[in-house]
Amino acid sequence: MSTQRTPNRTLRFGVLAAVAVAIWWAPPPEGVQAEAWQLLAIFLATIGGLILQPAPMGAVVIMGLTAAVLTGTLSMADALLGYQSATVWLIVSAFLFARCLNKTGLGRRIAFRFIRWFGHKTLGLGYSLSLADLVLAPGIPSGTARTGGVLFPVVRSLCSAYDSEPGPSSKRIGEFLMLTTYQIHCVTCAMFLTAMVANPLMVELAREVAGVDITWAGWAIAASVPGIVSFIALPILVYIMVKPQIRRTPEAAELAREELVRMGPMSRQELAVLAVFGGVFVLWISGEWDALPWSGLPPTGVAFLGLCLLLILEVISWDDVLDERAGWNALVWFGGLVSMATMLSRLGLTEWFAGFVGGYMQGWEWLEVMAVLVLVYLYAHYFFASLTAHVTALFAPFLATAVAAGAPPYFAALTLAFFSSLCASLTHYAGGPSAVFWGAGYTDIKGWWSVGFAISVLFVVVWMGLGPLWWRTLGLF
Amino acid sequence: MSTQRTPNRTLRFGVLAAVAVAIWWAPPPEGVQAEAWQLLAIFLATIGGLILQPAPMGAVVIMGLTAAVLTGTLSMADALLGYQSATVWLIVSAFLFARCLNKTGLGRRIAFRFIRWFGHKTLGLGYSLSLADLVLAPGIPSGTARTGGVLFPVVRSLCSAYDSEPGPSSKRIGEFLMLTTYQIHCVTCAMFLTAMVANPLMVELAREVAGVDITWAGWAIAASVPGIVSFIALPILVYIMVKPQIRRTPEAAELAREELVRMGPMSRQELAVLAVFGGVFVLWISGEWDALPWSGLPPTGVAFLGLCLLLILEVISWDDVLDERAGWNALVWFGGLVSMATMLSRLGLTEWFAGFVGGYMQGWEWLEVMAVLVLVYLYAHYFFASLTAHVTALFAPFLATAVAAGAPPYFAALTLAFFSSLCASLTHYAGGPSAVFWGAGYTDIKGWWSVGFAISVLFVVVWMGLGPLWWRTLGLF
Repeated sequence: MSTQRTPNRTLRFGVLAAVAVAIWWAPPPEGVQAEAWQLLAIFLATIGGLILQPAPMGAVVIMGLTAAVLTGTLSMADALLGYQSATVWLIVSAFLFARCLNKTGLGRRIAFRFIRWFGHKTLGLGYSLSLADLVLAPGIPSGTARTGGVLFPVVRSLCSAYDSEPGPSSKRIGEFLMLTTYQIHCVTCAMFLTAMVANPLMVELAREVAGVDITWAGWAIAASVPGIVSFIALPILVYIMVKPQIRRTPEAAELAREELVRMGPMSRQELAVLAVFGGVFVLWISGEWDALPWSGLPPTGVAFLGLCLLLILEVISWDDVLDERAGWNALVWFGGLVSMATMLSRLGLTEWFAGFVGGYMQGWEWLEVMAVLVLVYLYAHYFFASLTAHVTALFAPFLATAVAAGAPPYFAALTLAFFSSLCASLTHYAGGPSAVFWGAGYTDIKGWWSVGFAISVLFVVVWMGLGPLWWRTLGLF
Repeated sequence: MSTQRTPNRTLRFGVLAAVAVAIWWAPPPEGVQAEAWQLLAIFLATIGGLILQPAPMGAVVIMGLTAAVLTGTLSMADALLGYQSATVWLIVSAFLFARCLNKTGLGRRIAFRFIRWFGHKTLGLGYSLSLADLVLAPGIPSGTARTGGVLFPVVRSLCSAYDSEPGPSSKRIGEFLMLTTYQIHCVTCAMFLTAMVANPLMVELAREVAGVDITWAGWAIAASVPGIVSFIALPILVYIMVKPQIRRTPEAAELAREELVRMGPMSRQELAVLAVFGGVFVLWISGEWDALPWSGLPPTGVAFLGLCLLLILEVISWDDVLDERAGWNALVWFGGLVSMATMLSRLGLTEWFAGFVGGYMQGWEWLEVMAVLVLVYLYAHYFFASLTAHVTALFAPFLATAVAAGAPPYFAALTLAFFSSLCASLTHYAGGPSAVFWGAGYTDIKGWWSVGFAISVLFVVVWMGLGPLWWRTLGLF
């Protein structure tokens, strides 16, 4: 069992060490300082570690930092600089919010509430689940926790209610519900800074590489129009492709009603979570407008305020905070990657890469360069099993290349950031939630990949066609 | 039960808020900027929170940081700067080392090993327990975990083996063993940078306030001579004062032998811990000497190396790391306090305080000033129930006052740092371990306070008399 999950752990460590040593000893190309080249060697081995996983993500990142410090490539302070990052602590706070949504049962209640309202037909059921995912997205920064943790059990029980199990009966309704819920999460992850764990990492990288400052509200506003359009189109597309046999689902609404009756009225704790989150979202989204007295409040400060209120109202205890393993895990790996990626950029390597690739694209219009970069970035996810690994490896060099080719930095950063989540549609190994939904067994590879590819085309049309029109209206470029 | 432990939670929050608001609105004294004064208001309310504990320590610190950010007193980056501190991550690593010592049983094995060797007489039994505490001290940065967690159960079972229970039979041997083990931990905490959780905080503060850089090796070498002398004298002093009725304890050595037999030979994991710790200590202690190839390795980098090896050797899993609640707790409260205390100093408040107090000591020799400051600092612990609260409140201003009076900064910083642990001898509410040992019920208040006071006099003689001679020999001042 254990050997099945970690075959050849030593071999994988060996491969990564060999990669690091080989790059380390290779002569750096002209214009790259030795320090930057050494850090690149350690960085690439670390990203390789996120892919090969000889040890859990956090352990791999700590090993990378340790190697950088002990070889004198980074000072201790530089190696730890990511842990001072406000976005890192925003993610930790969001994990604690997610815990409140789970602990109080508010997440499930929201899902059943939408099903009660809109779940009378199969397509409406798909939209109900999608709406629940959308509402929860700003507060649960992990697709695995949100779509996999909160929604998957609801979807699974709906399938069983319609005798739709893995196998032939999956065509009744299960395949449609599973694929819709999974695919919609690619959209919701892209729509909010706090909806996906690697989103804040890109904010950090964009600041470092392209000098643009993406705020919580700025992200949400830019994503809103293409987000809503693809949110509306996606379930219909899946519905047409998958053709569920059951079309009307009055029993689902009835089942939701029963679940809601069983839950009883909202508890004091659920109301507290609702009120605190409502306040946090208002402050996040309105923090941009200078006219308001709270303009300029840092989003992490607002999140800390929400956390303090949840602690004071005893919705969450300090013990809960210390138990939030996913949050501490994100702190460790996220902070460490921020340190390394930031230092790579400060040492000039990202810029050098952009100049290098740009050399092959001389004479191109920046729009052409952007289109090629985004498509390569999107479909490169066929080769990744983690959004974070993808982002860490490709976001900074691709952004630097786009900017060097003349693309407006804010526009380029946002487009790449959105496609960092949208790309999860492609495969059944795209990340944590795909493992959950694929593992349920309602779809075969052909079904998943063809729907995934069709949806990726939808995303390209909406986010690369409609998106820029909206961003131009906003005056982003 | 819950109301008994937290009476009037709201009242306590109210008192702290009132303190903060009152100071905030009071006009700052001349020479203090408004920002510094506002931060002082929040800082004093936070320290008040560590004492009154309306919420757990970590929660109080987060509330303090949030207040500082939302009022615009600190920027988000300044509020989080403590989380980049290498000493904060050194403490997190040390908590993980402590977990390995506990998990593998190596800590208990070491205790029984010493009892087997030296535990044939009552006094020797006291030294055996003391030696175990000394050996474990550099790797377990929490008196509560080390002396309370590893050693207390051993002491308790020894007492029972001699039919010495709370009440009259405590005089047989229990009172002596309990007091000796507790009191020796005040010495071991003072001897190593990584032996007490607030020690690294003082290193940060000393750097900020007095510009001195105290290293792991520098601390250990300076503490060694007064540490060893008080380590030898302390059990004898307790022995004379407490007069245990049982003088010879051949059964204890036999009991230890049986326990060791039951444990069997050292496991692969225990050997791994021993080897890794041995290596880490050698690197820590020898990192100072320029002639060695590894001179200048940062202690936190060395600790990370140890952690990586323990992960690779599978002594500790990444799940264990994420489960280390005490470590995450220390990260949160420690990092936040470092942020606030550092910013108070950078905003000039600590310096202003030193000048203010110094005004009353004009014309004094610096040695006189130091003597008064250290005695006040030591006996002020009658008013604290936590070493960390004591350190956070008093260390920086006392150090600044000493330096302003002409005391050599390194000398002043080390002396105050040592007495920050030694002061725990005084009361049964001095900190976490005192709650454990007092709670066992082997001593009455009179016994504890008289022994505690006598030992504090021993500490004054050894650490203020002998200590400076040793430090002068070392050329520290």
